[in-house]
Amino acid sequence: MLYSQLFSRTSKDIPSDETSKNAQLLIRAGYIHKEMAGVYSFLPLGYKVLQNIIHIIREEMDKIGGNEMLMSSLQDPSIWKKSNRWTDNKDVDAWFTTKLKNDTELGLGFTHEEDITNIASKFVKSYKNLPLLAYQFQNKFRNETRAKSGIMRTREFIMKDLYSFARDEEEHEILYNRVADAYKIIFKRLGIGDKTYKTFASGGVFSKYSHEYQTLCEAGEDEIYVCDRLGMAINKEVYNDEVLADLGVGKDELRVAPASEVGNIFSLGTRFSSALDLKYKNEKGEEKEVVMGSYGIGPARVMGIIAELISDDRGLIWPTEIAPYALYLVSLHKEKGDEVYNYSEEIYNVLRGSGVDVMWDDRESAAGEKLADADLIGIPVRVLVSTKTIEQGGVEIKERVASQTEIVTKEQFLKSWTEACN
Amino acid sequence: MLYSQLFSRTSKDIPSDETSKNAQLLIRAGYIHKEMAGVYSFLPLGYKVLQNIIHIIREEMDKIGGNEMLMSSLQDPSIWKKSNRWTDNKDVDAWFTTKLKNDTELGLGFTHEEDITNIASKFVKSYKNLPLLAYQFQNKFRNETRAKSGIMRTREFIMKDLYSFARDEEEHEILYNRVADAYKIIFKRLGIGDKTYKTFASGGVFSKYSHEYQTLCEAGEDEIYVCDRLGMAINKEVYNDEVLADLGVGKDELRVAPASEVGNIFSLGTRFSSALDLKYKNEKGEEKEVVMGSYGIGPARVMGIIAELISDDRGLIWPTEIAPYALYLVSLHKEKGDEVYNYSEEIYNVLRGSGVDVMWDDRESAAGEKLADADLIGIPVRVLVSTKTIEQGGVEIKERVASQTEIVTKEQFLKSWTEACN
Repeated sequence: MLYSQLFSRTSKDIPSDETSKNAQLLIRAGYIHKEMAGVYSFLPLGYKVLQNIIHIIREEMDKIGGNEMLMSSLQDPSIWKKSNRWTDNKDVDAWFTTKLKNDTELGLGFTHEEDITNIASKFVKSYKNLPLLAYQFQNKFRNETRAKSGIMRTREFIMKDLYSFARDEEEHEILYNRVADAYKIIFKRLGIGDKTYKTFASGGVFSKYSHEYQTLCEAGEDEIYVCDRLGMAINKEVYNDEVLADLGVGKDELRVAPASEVGNIFSLGTRFSSALDLKYKNEKGEEKEVVMGSYGIGPARVMGIIAELISDDRGLIWPTEIAPYALYLVSLHKEKGDEVYNYSEEIYNVLRGSGVDVMWDDRESAAGEKLADADLIGIPVRVLVSTKTIEQGGVEIKERVASQTEIVTKEQFLKSWTEACN
Repeated sequence: MLYSQLFSRTSKDIPSDETSKNAQLLIRAGYIHKEMAGVYSFLPLGYKVLQNIIHIIREEMDKIGGNEMLMSSLQDPSIWKKSNRWTDNKDVDAWFTTKLKNDTELGLGFTHEEDITNIASKFVKSYKNLPLLAYQFQNKFRNETRAKSGIMRTREFIMKDLYSFARDEEEHEILYNRVADAYKIIFKRLGIGDKTYKTFASGGVFSKYSHEYQTLCEAGEDEIYVCDRLGMAINKEVYNDEVLADLGVGKDELRVAPASEVGNIFSLGTRFSSALDLKYKNEKGEEKEVVMGSYGIGPARVMGIIAELISDDRGLIWPTEIAPYALYLVSLHKEKGDEVYNYSEEIYNVLRGSGVDVMWDDRESAAGEKLADADLIGIPVRVLVSTKTIEQGGVEIKERVASQTEIVTKEQFLKSWTEACN
């Protein structure tokens, strides 16, 4: 990608209407655009990061046998009334609603338990059809009274929601643990594994606890009690003597810290299958209700947390696997066609030809501006070409997280990058 | 993929509330689920087809320099009022609207010209920032009075919308033609190139004509006059003597046919840049308005048209590049672990290990049901394993479009498929 053909531009100004670090950095670096409070569009750089996060989650969901699908945003209230989650009953106030021309009221999905349970009831007839895992990356709408924390809590956001369907509690436990294992891998691959804790939170009708995945983060809205010995945590909302006894944890081995929820896993029991008539016939021909679970991760919230956690005064610092580009080429040329430009162009073409995901800042801007933008945008490795580096025999390499630089020959540099991609 | 782990099931019943062939076939084959009139969810098989179509479009948009991004569904009316497309003015009646808790009215985007023009105005300052191409695959909402034609006209649908930004009319023409060339390649790759015509349609304030891409299709809502000599068509709505003279076409060389619009390309001139203040400074430092274009393709409509056009009495017939799976393995085993099952399992494992995208119908169902499902689901190649094929020395291959079958040895079959994927 050539910077000159990029849709967005960086900005020096800190947006005055944003108090959160993630939104300030992501807007300044040209990753997101604020449409209104709690609603953001993803610009090309930001969309690449979002897609990289989605790609990691998708790979791990597929590995455990997830069926990817896509449900609608427009929701028919009649199926939500069956489970008492339509607003007539005031049980849920997250709905955005809209109307057809004939005045029929519809909802915009804030989650999809009811919808998928209803769909599953068309297909699941026999024990032979179970177990099943189905998931989607889909745009949720939540009518938050106050939107805050940048892209960490918004009114519209893509969510990965997986649903599990099991014959009984025992089979459900197997699926639940399988997803929990996948979540552990996902957060590790996303670069926040060491800061993310499986956290005991309040359950529901069908289970004493649910599990949240909480990432330690100053900007987080939750408080958790971390137990380093067991590598887990307890949400403040369920922190009491009974829970500590249940989990075999002493007060003195817990430390309290702010955290943000990046994922959650729920045992739903038969709450939705019962309400929406999702039954199957077992081997004896008896009708049984399906035991369900639901499992969420918000890719944009993860992106916001990474921007909060892994950044410095100069800008963003993306983990390699989710960076919008692998390499950021900066050429300090005076004009198109001069020695530095041509030297850089050759490098760019060789890298592109070998499939390296490289962004070239090909603008004729001041050196200081280009280097500041490189830091702000935060691609993991920067390679610099200038009259000086050419005199010194090649290019200057610098990792975004490091302060030292290294001069290597062009040949050496190209060899290491093109080999890595073959 | 194992059929036993697939979320959907086929159905023998023709859905009573669907008159369109595409919806009937896609629902029966387990590709889509009807949520309500004009709103469908994509089940795993259908989502794969949709993703394959999106993948082709994305590749071609990237090749011409498109920046992929993702704008929000929730839209702030204030920017739409600037171009007179908010419903207060009754200029547009496609809006679905909703409200924040504080009663602020919002719209659900039915297109994104205003939004992207507003975003671009933050970044485009100089002639050096142009030209630009930006696009998205995003969920559109249109409050259609009557929803019909299955997934060919819905109230909620993913659209690829590309927007071009040029310095002047001349540069705009270059971009416009570049997109037109890409569209030609896209429809060819989608398997409908020979039935799809670039069609002259009514223009707007800034151009005499716009271009639609119309695919000949009995279920289409439009009528077009096709000129085989020039390989183009004229929409009935602009069919008159003046247009014929403009295009140098005689009445006698045109044939009229029903067709469905799969894409469109519009020259927008400065309609939106003027309304939303998208200006740049040219080389002389003068302020100029950006010249824009917009370019749509509806992947789900394409999917519906393919289901209409390329199908037979037995079911769907997917073109290879968009089929949900490349190969459909049917084993007529009696039970798990018998000779036929094990023989099939070995084939399945070898294929999967080599990266072949294969679906194995591993159910213990009747042979007739399995073969009927294979035809209904419509994966391009079927490979059958039964006691008989094993006795004959291997497996039976049949293409979905062909009636003849062929017995080949297991080794020969595996060699040809695993080599093709390496």
